[in-house]
Amino acid sequence: VSKPLAIALDLGGTQARAALINRAGEILARKSENTKAQDSGDVVLAQLANLAQIVAVGHDWQTIAGVGLSSPGPVDTTTGTAFQLATIPGLNGLPMQNILEQSLSLPVRVENDGTAAAIGEWRFGAGRGHDHLVYVTVSTGIGGGVICDGSPLRGRRGLAAEVGHLRLVPNGEVCGCGIKGCFEAYASGTALAKRARKRMNNTALDTEMIFAAAKNGDAAANTLIDEEAAFLGQGFATLLHLYSPDLIIMGGGVSAQFERLHQGMVRELNANAMPAFQNTPIVKAALGGHSGLIGAASLIFDLR
Amino acid sequence: VSKPLAIALDLGGTQARAALINRAGEILARKSENTKAQDSGDVVLAQLANLAQIVAVGHDWQTIAGVGLSSPGPVDTTTGTAFQLATIPGLNGLPMQNILEQSLSLPVRVENDGTAAAIGEWRFGAGRGHDHLVYVTVSTGIGGGVICDGSPLRGRRGLAAEVGHLRLVPNGEVCGCGIKGCFEAYASGTALAKRARKRMNNTALDTEMIFAAAKNGDAAANTLIDEEAAFLGQGFATLLHLYSPDLIIMGGGVSAQFERLHQGMVRELNANAMPAFQNTPIVKAALGGHSGLIGAASLIFDLR
Repeated sequence: VSKPLAIALDLGGTQARAALINRAGEILARKSENTKAQDSGDVVLAQLANLAQIVAVGHDWQTIAGVGLSSPGPVDTTTGTAFQLATIPGLNGLPMQNILEQSLSLPVRVENDGTAAAIGEWRFGAGRGHDHLVYVTVSTGIGGGVICDGSPLRGRRGLAAEVGHLRLVPNGEVCGCGIKGCFEAYASGTALAKRARKRMNNTALDTEMIFAAAKNGDAAANTLIDEEAAFLGQGFATLLHLYSPDLIIMGGGVSAQFERLHQGMVRELNANAMPAFQNTPIVKAALGGHSGLIGAASLIFDLR
Repeated sequence: VSKPLAIALDLGGTQARAALINRAGEILARKSENTKAQDSGDVVLAQLANLAQIVAVGHDWQTIAGVGLSSPGPVDTTTGTAFQLATIPGLNGLPMQNILEQSLSLPVRVENDGTAAAIGEWRFGAGRGHDHLVYVTVSTGIGGGVICDGSPLRGRRGLAAEVGHLRLVPNGEVCGCGIKGCFEAYASGTALAKRARKRMNNTALDTEMIFAAAKNGDAAANTLIDEEAAFLGQGFATLLHLYSPDLIIMGGGVSAQFERLHQGMVRELNANAMPAFQNTPIVKAALGGHSGLIGAASLIFDLR
């Protein structure tokens, strides 16, 4: 008999979140805390184990199939080890899977956060029933994950699908990663805000204010958003050519403005995609901020 | 007992090639003809069946495990159907697998030519032992194939890994595919020759002449080749970020000049790749013009 529940952990540089999730993808309990990001790795893992126990309160431990962890940074999914974790340095290189299995006495699986979110949307969200999809989260940065031929793409050291770092512009804006011209450096929420601040000479502008101004008819704000949609469509076109997904799923903070951006993204995608790839749907993530949590639970439900 | 031989067919717009190949990847017999590209699909398939029989002469048909076909165009590998075949229009939409199985009484598998070549290098060439690789053929165009997590990437309608059509330059040179700024429009042999002809005001130049002039110390030719290497390195950097291969394997006509291009490609790749991807090896294809044929045979040897 397969156990009906999984514990999902979504570890971010700011928030550590836990949820108890059933095989229908429904969240039965949730709990979040500020990540003890500057503490040692053992302290962070103890925090995660504690969160796991809290969301399971009132449920028999025997009904829980395991624990899925969505982690930032490249993840070696065979050992459950993350590395190059800028935001939670104490976890670098720690065998998280093994340590959590010891402390929780449950099977644990660890996945990169972009891939976990892609899996969530694939199993329970906007990508259900598709064998091929690209999930792109557009917020302070751009990340994502890819499902191709019915499997998540991982690649060497779990580093595949760094979709924010396809090069959009030669010798372009310097990206947070240090390289020039990345998709992220043009189309993230941060990049949009930066362009707006510069052009409107107002250092207080954020993306919400830009969308609000555009809605009120501000021409400069609307131009900025049209450019944002164009950059997104251009990046998506390269993703189509390289992964050939059935659809592109857009999540992250900027996807709150999906409806405003959609037409412009489609136009630019079609202008930059070969005929066989044109009109590939771009859809909004269905699970909102929970794609990663639900994807982490899927890691457990899909275990064989 | 597994049968020791496979027949490989490599169908191009110009040449149709066949080989008899053993499980060590050795070619025992070969035959090629000009493709009857303007004839009906049935005529082209009869030509392929005839070539298959010719390379098997002197071998018991019972020792042949099957026939692998490397075909241009996107290929639906589940049905063995190719479409959007500009060079051999008669084959568009024909169930090639089924028709060849009927005429040859052997299992047949069909694969896109870029993916077939990637499989050949993976199984028997420069990519042996690796679970993740990107094969890029640089010749009149740029094509290729990807092995990720131990499987060939296919994607929707077998269209994944159109590596020649990642966008290198916004609003750039028009590519053969109709889109502006593709990798292929900057880094293919055709693109190099076009730049040379324009810059040197000599409409007779081809890539071999450019490399020969560079070897003789011609400064303008050396600059053109340095630019070619840079474009290749830039495109490869985006491929690293999206697929995270263990290595990039370069084949195609331009790879004859691999040694001249290597240092420049590595320099530009490292300048455009995030730290975790820097120094990923770029190597020359080991099977030369036979990557596709040997990959087609692998389709049969890997059948379960």
